[in-house]
Amino acid sequence: MLVYGKNVAREVLNSNIKINEIYILDTFNSEEILNIIKKNNLKFTIKNQSEMSKMTKEPHQGIIIDIEDYKFLDFEEIKKDEKTNFIVVLDHIEDPRNFGAIIRTCECAGVNYIIIPNKKTSEITPAVVKTSSGALANIKIVQVSNLRNALLNLKKLNFWIIGTDAQGEDYTKINYKGKVALVIGSEGFGLKHIVKETCDIIASIPIKGKVNSLNASVAAGIMIYEVAKER
Amino acid sequence: MLVYGKNVAREVLNSNIKINEIYILDTFNSEEILNIIKKNNLKFTIKNQSEMSKMTKEPHQGIIIDIEDYKFLDFEEIKKDEKTNFIVVLDHIEDPRNFGAIIRTCECAGVNYIIIPNKKTSEITPAVVKTSSGALANIKIVQVSNLRNALLNLKKLNFWIIGTDAQGEDYTKINYKGKVALVIGSEGFGLKHIVKETCDIIASIPIKGKVNSLNASVAAGIMIYEVAKER
Repeated sequence: MLVYGKNVAREVLNSNIKINEIYILDTFNSEEILNIIKKNNLKFTIKNQSEMSKMTKEPHQGIIIDIEDYKFLDFEEIKKDEKTNFIVVLDHIEDPRNFGAIIRTCECAGVNYIIIPNKKTSEITPAVVKTSSGALANIKIVQVSNLRNALLNLKKLNFWIIGTDAQGEDYTKINYKGKVALVIGSEGFGLKHIVKETCDIIASIPIKGKVNSLNASVAAGIMIYEVAKER
Repeated sequence: MLVYGKNVAREVLNSNIKINEIYILDTFNSEEILNIIKKNNLKFTIKNQSEMSKMTKEPHQGIIIDIEDYKFLDFEEIKKDEKTNFIVVLDHIEDPRNFGAIIRTCECAGVNYIIIPNKKTSEITPAVVKTSSGALANIKIVQVSNLRNALLNLKKLNFWIIGTDAQGEDYTKINYKGKVALVIGSEGFGLKHIVKETCDIIASIPIKGKVNSLNASVAAGIMIYEVAKER
C-alpha cells in the first residue's frame, strides 16, 4: 500500500511497520524526515515530479512510502491464545480517523485483539495508518465474516460481552473483571440490533449536554480505559 | 464565518448555532438537507456555480452557510458564575478536529467553561464547527492572553488545578471532588513548562503499548469523564 505526505511518513518511519520502498522527490528538503531515513539506514529512490505524480493523484508533499499491506488474522488465533482477556469488537466503524484513533487507544490500553467485520468497515487506508500513529504495527486485528457468530464463539471461550450504546447501564457501575469483549458501535447508528441482543450487558456513558453523543473514538477511549483499569 | 459542505451544513442546521444566510447551488439536490431547511422555516438564496465558487475556493458540495462568529467570553464571566466547579483549560491544542472533539466531549460531560489562550490555538474553523457536532452553540469558551495568570486566578477562586502529562500520578488514584480545572496539553508537546509548574498535581493515563501517547482528544475524553464521575 502506498502512503504519502510528511506526517504519515514520519509516523511510518518511526514505527515497526514494514517498508517495501521509499520514493523521494528530487527537490524534497525536509531535514527531519531525511535524518530519520539516514538514522535507520533505509534505502530510498529519488524520483522527479512527473514520476511521483504518476504514483498517486493526491498531494504527496515529496514523499511516498510503499508499506506492507496489513495482514489480518483469523479467529482461530484468539482460540489458541490462552492469555487473551481483553478484546475490542468494532461494529462497522466507517471513518478512517476514528478507526485509526481506536487502534492507537487499544494499543496504549493493552487490548489483546481487535475484531472487525470484513464488510462496511473502514479499510486500512493511509488515513488509518496516520491516525493510528504507528500502533498498527503492534496490534492484532482479526477479520470475521459474521460479527454475531464471533461474539457467540467468544462466549464459548468464557468472554463477557459488553456492548456500548445510548440506552444501557451506567458504565461506571459495571464489573469489568475477567475476560471482557467490548463491542463498539458505528458512528451514526450505534450497535446493530442483532449484535446488541448478543451482548450480555449494554454499557452507557452518561450525557449531560444537548448534543446527544460523543465522537466515536472518544467514546471508545473512555470505555476501553474503564475496562483497562481492571486489568 | 462561512462554512460549507453537506456534513457541516447538517450539523449547523440541527444545532443552536445562529445562521446569518444560507446559499444553495441551483442544482443542489440533497433531499435530507433541503428538508431540514424547510422544517425549520429557514430562508435561503439560490446561486449559480460561478457565484458559489467566488464565495469559497474550497469544495462546497452545493451549500454554503454564513454563521455568526463565535463570541468568546472574558475571564470575568467565570468570577461571576458561582456555580462553576468544572473547567477545562486547553494549553494550545492546534488541530481543529481535536479542538472540535474536545468541545463536544466538554458539552456532553457538563463542563462549565473551556479556557483557551488567544495565541497558537486552533481558531474556530469550519472543521471545528463540524467536529464539535453542534456543541459549540452550547459551550462557553473564555479566551485569555496569559494561561498561567488564568490558572493563578482560578486558584484564588479555590480551583484545584490538575494538569495532564506523561509523567505524573496515576489518573485513577486522584480525588476529583470540589472545584476542578483540568489542563490539557497540546498534541505533540504536552504542557508547557510554565503551565505545568502552576498545576497542583499532574495526572497521567497509564500507557502499556509501544506507541507512547493517545490521540489528544481521546486522552482529553478519558480525563474529562474521570473528573465528571465525581460531579
